[in-house]
Amino acid sequence: MSRIEQKSGTANDLTSGEAFAPAERDAVYRAIATRRDVRGEFLPDPLCENALSRILAAAHQAPSVGLSQPWDFILVRDRETRVRVAEIFARANEEAARRFPAQKQARYRTLKLEGILSAPLNICVTSDPARGGPVILGATHMADTDLFSTVCAIQNLWLAARAEGIGVGWVSILHEDQVKSVLGIPDRIRLVGYLCLGHVRGFHDRPELEKRGWRHRDDVKKHVHEERWNAQHDPED
Amino acid sequence: MSRIEQKSGTANDLTSGEAFAPAERDAVYRAIATRRDVRGEFLPDPLCENALSRILAAAHQAPSVGLSQPWDFILVRDRETRVRVAEIFARANEEAARRFPAQKQARYRTLKLEGILSAPLNICVTSDPARGGPVILGATHMADTDLFSTVCAIQNLWLAARAEGIGVGWVSILHEDQVKSVLGIPDRIRLVGYLCLGHVRGFHDRPELEKRGWRHRDDVKKHVHEERWNAQHDPED
Repeated sequence: MSRIEQKSGTANDLTSGEAFAPAERDAVYRAIATRRDVRGEFLPDPLCENALSRILAAAHQAPSVGLSQPWDFILVRDRETRVRVAEIFARANEEAARRFPAQKQARYRTLKLEGILSAPLNICVTSDPARGGPVILGATHMADTDLFSTVCAIQNLWLAARAEGIGVGWVSILHEDQVKSVLGIPDRIRLVGYLCLGHVRGFHDRPELEKRGWRHRDDVKKHVHEERWNAQHDPED
Repeated sequence: MSRIEQKSGTANDLTSGEAFAPAERDAVYRAIATRRDVRGEFLPDPLCENALSRILAAAHQAPSVGLSQPWDFILVRDRETRVRVAEIFARANEEAARRFPAQKQARYRTLKLEGILSAPLNICVTSDPARGGPVILGATHMADTDLFSTVCAIQNLWLAARAEGIGVGWVSILHEDQVKSVLGIPDRIRLVGYLCLGHVRGFHDRPELEKRGWRHRDDVKKHVHEERWNAQHDPED
């Protein structure tokens, strides 16, 4: 019997399975409903280190395949590094704009899509597919399970930050290899999310892309199928 | 100006950027800290439909690349369907067991890794990479952004369920193509997560794989790097 089992002693003991009290439950739903992808509202004030520690601890409490904990968090505050990442974004974003149909390009260029320099902290979140050893429980049959674990950590981080009054923006318009080179990330490690964090002037009350007329939110009912896939139910526009 | 912009009228209006009150913040952290991957503690009681609706709405409030909302949720209650999925699991799990080193196989076989039949509801969560159209804002340069959006939806669902006193288990030891065939999911759609949901006898106070001596949790500090990747900091065992 391992040291860990000896320490727990009671591997089948359980805590209550009751629902949260209504006010607690509502707080969880409030974090989920008011979380936003923040781009243009960052304040330059540095983050409280205690809040940052709580947010990172929340990320680390995410589920992970086989308890592999494949995530790493690179905290980037140095302005020179952020300038280099912002340049990578600028090049990628210009390429991105040109991929849209002509009538959408002008609107695309009006959108603010990152806060790399205006946010005081960037966090590069990575995933190591080998973290759990040569065979990982739960990762034997489906691909990308380490990435999924790492994304769960990002969503935990995002919700915890919202409760702390800290905005998060996920920047995906980047050349992954170029950012990895700037940050010295080894080839075998996957860059999953490049996040900008900071206090904010306020949060948008709805997704900003919806407010700016880029795309609308569907009714959730269009995404729910009963018993099997319903082809008539495809929410595609 | 689009109809959507006219409706909002005030695309730059913001709600408060303040932190949640301490009790609200603590509730968010409680959901994150006490969420568990549930396998063996499901009760057969059906879920309250209102709670299920709230959980699905929470999933649908996840961030998505370019507001593409690539997720779908197939609710599976039919026992015959679940028996077929459980058979797919059983075959995959036997294959999985044989991949571990000899000294780990016996312990692997003692672990309960799914609640497909004991949970009253299964939810198959899928991702459609084409949901946002031929060019998707934010998906032009990094791969798998639709999958990441869908995983954010799953983590929202998981945390909302915890607040409702509903357990969730993510089953990844499955042949994706076989499950897609059982549920009639088109080839172009990716199966991301197969979830089991139900009320529970209780929640484990720590990750079950840790309690059962499979693997331990790292200190979060081992996963945090300052300014750039720190090779000396690799948390690999």
